Amino acid sequence: MVRAAVMTQPLQPLEVREYPDPEPAAGEVVLETLCSEVCGTDVHLYHGRLAGVPYPIIPGHVSVGRVMETAGEVLDVDGRPVERDQIVTFLDVHETCGHCWYCLVAQETTKCPHRKVYGITYPADEGLLGGWSEQILLKAGVKIVPLPEGVEVVDYIGGGCGLSTGFHAVERADIRLGDTVVVQGSGPVGLSATAFARLSGADQVIVVGAPENRLALAEAFEADHTLDINRVSPDERLEFVLGVTAGRGADVVIEVSGNPQAVVEGPDLARDGGTYVIAGQYTDAGSITINPHLQINKKHLNIRGCWGTAFTHVYRGLRLMARYRDRFRWRDLVSHTFLLEEADEALASVEKLEATKALVVPGTWRL
Amino acid sequence: MVRAAVMTQPLQPLEVREYPDPEPAAGEVVLETLCSEVCGTDVHLYHGRLAGVPYPIIPGHVSVGRVMETAGEVLDVDGRPVERDQIVTFLDVHETCGHCWYCLVAQETTKCPHRKVYGITYPADEGLLGGWSEQILLKAGVKIVPLPEGVEVVDYIGGGCGLSTGFHAVERADIRLGDTVVVQGSGPVGLSATAFARLSGADQVIVVGAPENRLALAEAFEADHTLDINRVSPDERLEFVLGVTAGRGADVVIEVSGNPQAVVEGPDLARDGGTYVIAGQYTDAGSITINPHLQINKKHLNIRGCWGTAFTHVYRGLRLMARYRDRFRWRDLVSHTFLLEEADEALASVEKLEATKALVVPGTWRL
Amino acid sequence: MVRAAVMTQPLQPLEVREYPDPEPAAGEVVLETLCSEVCGTDVHLYHGRLAGVPYPIIPGHVSVGRVMETAGEVLDVDGRPVERDQIVTFLDVHETCGHCWYCLVAQETTKCPHRKVYGITYPADEGLLGGWSEQILLKAGVKIVPLPEGVEVVDYIGGGCGLSTGFHAVERADIRLGDTVVVQGSGPVGLSATAFARLSGADQVIVVGAPENRLALAEAFEADHTLDINRVSPDERLEFVLGVTAGRGADVVIEVSGNPQAVVEGPDLARDGGTYVIAGQYTDAGSITINPHLQINKKHLNIRGCWGTAFTHVYRGLRLMARYRDRFRWRDLVSHTFLLEEADEALASVEKLEATKALVVPGTWRL
Amino acid sequence: MVRAAVMTQPLQPLEVREYPDPEPAAGEVVLETLCSEVCGTDVHLYHGRLAGVPYPIIPGHVSVGRVMETAGEVLDVDGRPVERDQIVTFLDVHETCGHCWYCLVAQETTKCPHRKVYGITYPADEGLLGGWSEQILLKAGVKIVPLPEGVEVVDYIGGGCGLSTGFHAVERADIRLGDTVVVQGSGPVGLSATAFARLSGADQVIVVGAPENRLALAEAFEADHTLDINRVSPDERLEFVLGVTAGRGADVVIEVSGNPQAVVEGPDLARDGGTYVIAGQYTDAGSITINPHLQINKKHLNIRGCWGTAFTHVYRGLRLMARYRDRFRWRDLVSHTFLLEEADEALASVEKLEATKALVVPGTWRL
Repeated sequence: MVRAAVMTQPLQPLEVREYPDPEPAAGEVVLETLCSEVCGTDVHLYHGRLAGVPYPIIPGHVSVGRVMETAGEVLDVDGRPVERDQIVTFLDVHETCGHCWYCLVAQETTKCPHRKVYGITYPADEGLLGGWSEQILLKAGVKIVPLPEGVEVVDYIGGGCGLSTGFHAVERADIRLGDTVVVQGSGPVGLSATAFARLSGADQVIVVGAPENRLALAEAFEADHTLDINRVSPDERLEFVLGVTAGRGADVVIEVSGNPQAVVEGPDLARDGGTYVIAGQYTDAGSITINPHLQINKKHLNIRGCWGTAFTHVYRGLRLMARYRDRFRWRDLVSHTFLLEEADEALASVEKLEATKALVVPGTWRL
Repeated sequence: MVRAAVMTQPLQPLEVREYPDPEPAAGEVVLETLCSEVCGTDVHLYHGRLAGVPYPIIPGHVSVGRVMETAGEVLDVDGRPVERDQIVTFLDVHETCGHCWYCLVAQETTKCPHRKVYGITYPADEGLLGGWSEQILLKAGVKIVPLPEGVEVVDYIGGGCGLSTGFHAVERADIRLGDTVVVQGSGPVGLSATAFARLSGADQVIVVGAPENRLALAEAFEADHTLDINRVSPDERLEFVLGVTAGRGADVVIEVSGNPQAVVEGPDLARDGGTYVIAGQYTDAGSITINPHLQINKKHLNIRGCWGTAFTHVYRGLRLMARYRDRFRWRDLVSHTFLLEEADEALASVEKLEATKALVVPGTWRL
Repeated sequence: MVRAAVMTQPLQPLEVREYPDPEPAAGEVVLETLCSEVCGTDVHLYHGRLAGVPYPIIPGHVSVGRVMETAGEVLDVDGRPVERDQIVTFLDVHETCGHCWYCLVAQETTKCPHRKVYGITYPADEGLLGGWSEQILLKAGVKIVPLPEGVEVVDYIGGGCGLSTGFHAVERADIRLGDTVVVQGSGPVGLSATAFARLSGADQVIVVGAPENRLALAEAFEADHTLDINRVSPDERLEFVLGVTAGRGADVVIEVSGNPQAVVEGPDLARDGGTYVIAGQYTDAGSITINPHLQINKKHLNIRGCWGTAFTHVYRGLRLMARYRDRFRWRDLVSHTFLLEEADEALASVEKLEATKALVVPGTWRL
Repeated sequence: MVRAAVMTQPLQPLEVREYPDPEPAAGEVVLETLCSEVCGTDVHLYHGRLAGVPYPIIPGHVSVGRVMETAGEVLDVDGRPVERDQIVTFLDVHETCGHCWYCLVAQETTKCPHRKVYGITYPADEGLLGGWSEQILLKAGVKIVPLPEGVEVVDYIGGGCGLSTGFHAVERADIRLGDTVVVQGSGPVGLSATAFARLSGADQVIVVGAPENRLALAEAFEADHTLDINRVSPDERLEFVLGVTAGRGADVVIEVSGNPQAVVEGPDLARDGGTYVIAGQYTDAGSITINPHLQINKKHLNIRGCWGTAFTHVYRGLRLMARYRDRFRWRDLVSHTFLLEEADEALASVEKLEATKALVVPGTWRL
């Protein structure tokens, strides 16, 4: 039997349940879970803030595991056979259909309505399709990515889903060499966005966030300046950004905070003709009041919503993580680990911002 | 002496004043004004809604005139000498400096802080620098554009500043061949945007506006569908747009209405991953409430503020007007003409939407 | 039994062979072929100019058919069930894999190495997988497109594969409103490119090609000027293009001629900073000599190779064909029809440029 | 009197001539020259390879000087007054007109036909308008850039015109995070391109060039791999690039070699759908033979010529030089200095590739 932490419905304590050993069909793979991320999205799931979630579910969308079994030859994303005992991750979002209007005509694959997500959109009774479980069943077609040489489990999971989300946000920002970039948010997504903004050739990078320990990490991720929202008022933040940009504002502002009020502040931090990426508003946390004349039209502002991630973001993000693993220490984001039985504590720790990044560790793997 | 209608301060009746005949310095040109547009911006000027306007001013930013005198050889934008009796227009926005950070580093020339605008930013005591005057002084360096063959005075002024503003809005929209486009607004800017959206290869073009006579013009400008905001509710408008786009929403929505509430509605009319151009919020008409999760982030929406126009918009817009003058009859927008003494009536007529486009005719030229 | 024209090997007369009636597996569809295009590519196939073709093959990549049988419910590209007796076409290029590096990381789906093409990459002994046959078997997953209302068989096949190829070439060109466009080539691809360049908002469109009857069609497809390569020398062509562009050259040049020498001439016809799309060099017809200083570097030229088509091009091209079927009469391209037994004559007719577009008509359908 | 090295005509020894002290008109500035670059373009000037050069000229387009005198208040590019004794550089290319079709309609300012270039397009009898002179006269409107804090004279001149040229080439390349980039050429432009490719988020950077000491510099500029064209054959280079890209080729190839044969090789080094920037073909060094089917069309290749530089490249390049002056040591490129009397030796040294970068030092400044 396989043990898994199950979110039976919103706002209820999670239960550890037992499931039969998975029996992989052709093309499927069974992983022994090494660790799985506890992400802000999991907190949203706990509060029932996402629509259409088929509770009970096994949470855990980004995970690392060891290959236990493959049903027939299964290829990884580079076309090499997946082998027993390999350490791999996989793309949590899969079944981008490749056949619908969004995939083919609009070519906006992150809006494909047929996408499925491990740990979010599968009911627990369909199988071990979430990472907070001793084993994970990878369906045929799930994109399997062996960790590159030199990237350890803790490096990868330290990046976790923030790595690809931050990557996508930075890609949407079209940073030019020499730009000044403001990142609103210092959680895992914000830290990855900080690193990728720096790697994109930004001159100045300014991170607006909290608490202090995350801002210290932001500096380690090569932010030039950090502004603690608990100590620096919105007016002072604006003044600071104008002060380091000759009064113009930042070329690019990237919102990855999750707080709707950040979207009120963001346009003012950007220069005329600048770019504002909104990537942190993953659930409906309420409406905001903005001035379309002053904040968009007269500013000639570019605003870009940014939803989900595609394989290209994971793939290239991971390459750069491998190259720069000594320069950007994603592993340092991992602050807490929890057993399956401690899933509620894990969620609480992330919600209270105690943990920068918490892991669920279902088996014998240890940090 | 030269007679001109002068806006002495906001909310006061305009006065017809007399000025000495202009004495052009080297490189300057004097025009006999044939006609000058009454634009929504003039209504804003009357209400004092634009910051930094040096009242008293001579309004009138887009005008057509006959060359009376040139001080030395003056070249038009194609490098040919400007000649006496030629019928010309000129770029109202000038002195884009070409030397500042916005011109050179950001390459966003419509945000150059040194721009000056005929009819808006010049005090009347600096000279005949607005079109509601029997004569206009063109400073050295003002870009002079002879009307192309086949384009009559009434064609050009029928387009007026809506031609270049609508052109710029459509250029910002990056319409793809086969797109469905919604235009919010059926004033002169909206009608030009409708024409240029059609010329950009849109499949369906839907215009949301009022009153009826403008919607009839929108159909003449090749809108497929028009929705009268006085008769069709916001819910019905959304339903209509979803109905003609297989439930997805429009690929592109272009706001040229001037009404902040249009900006609340616009994102919902766009499909996921679509583009929303906000080009009509030229003055501060108040704030709005939007939901950043549902309307921007989850939609993966592209929002583009659009400020001002550059010479390229005027130049190319005019070429297409010349080519398609029989297909898109911009001259049909001209509904009213007023003498200098009737400037107040002209403003009232535009404000009440009686006039689609009103002209001030200072001299002997007649429609 | 089903009769089909088979190209057994290069340079051999085609044979009409008989095959057993197809037995569709789940998700497959059988079409009664109404007509199938004879394309320049088929001439290349006959001469053995494409690598890796598994002769013997049944040629015919773009075809229209009537649905005879579906094995279970099969959906068209808009998600509606395909029904018996429906008139449909289908995307000849299929099995873009959606899983490889080109599909996912580079997001360049026309370079997916797993693509298969009806009428080109399938051996005849794998089944009725080409259009020069009384019936066609559509494999599961092949994208089926019902002809839109108002588009008749002859309209669609008149566009044929030139419709999507010309569409893709124009999309690569990023035509701006008001641009001058030169199209090198007046075959089916050139004529579609002419129409789509016009629909993209070009001001002037100039077609360089031959023979006369095709240039007459180019004018019907709204070319402003046509230059007959048999009568107008390269120097005169350059002089002409410079003459209508104030000495600068065209903003955009699109090569769809198939002649390598066109690529020598093309850069000179473009203005500095212009765009040159090379879309007609589908087989290796030899090398050319160019001057990289004068023709690329100093010109600050953008050159864009353009390979294959994706579903978005077919889908949007077809929408615009439906909208503008009275304005651009693609049906007028169809000049010749041939029976299965006349496949060799069909190829000869296309090769000699006698036919603008020839069809193979395997059954009872007639023009 | 002021001494200057004068190139009287092609292929003649330079002469040191004396000129009267400059008398600056309003808005002009006189610099005491500290040093001036000897660039590959100067070698081309010596051989008479550029059209329209008004010999005799004072060469030297990129220079650093100390302000001796300003005629009235003169502002630098950030709007601050230029002050006596300040150490400044200036944009060699000036008089981009801001009024012509290329500036305004095409918005391709590097192709403005009115541009003038210090050290290249001014005859010596018009004044001290080149850097190989004890003093330089900066005309009104020339963009003056004070060296940023921390950037010493030798840092800036070590970058020289290669800094902005390499920057422009990299900007044209649109490098994506994680790309593999090949730089063809290891001269000053190639080394700057290497640095800026790295700063743009490239994963692998490969430099193809010679001689050995330049390749060592390329590694110091963070190339991962260098291929010595004197030791590694074209076939081996292709094999190497394919080997490190899973057989696909580089995402981006940037030509900054000056050798036309590089343009024959470049497309093959790029992957399908990749980008090839041609920025090194500054003079006509002859024609080349390429295969448009295999090297452009079938590859779906993007080729971008890259001519000249604009102020944005200098400005942002200099900001990044200041930030990364310890990481990328442009000063290390300076290998030789020459007096005015040694101008011929300077040219010979650059032509023979002995010098990575040579300076002319007209006065008392020393390295």
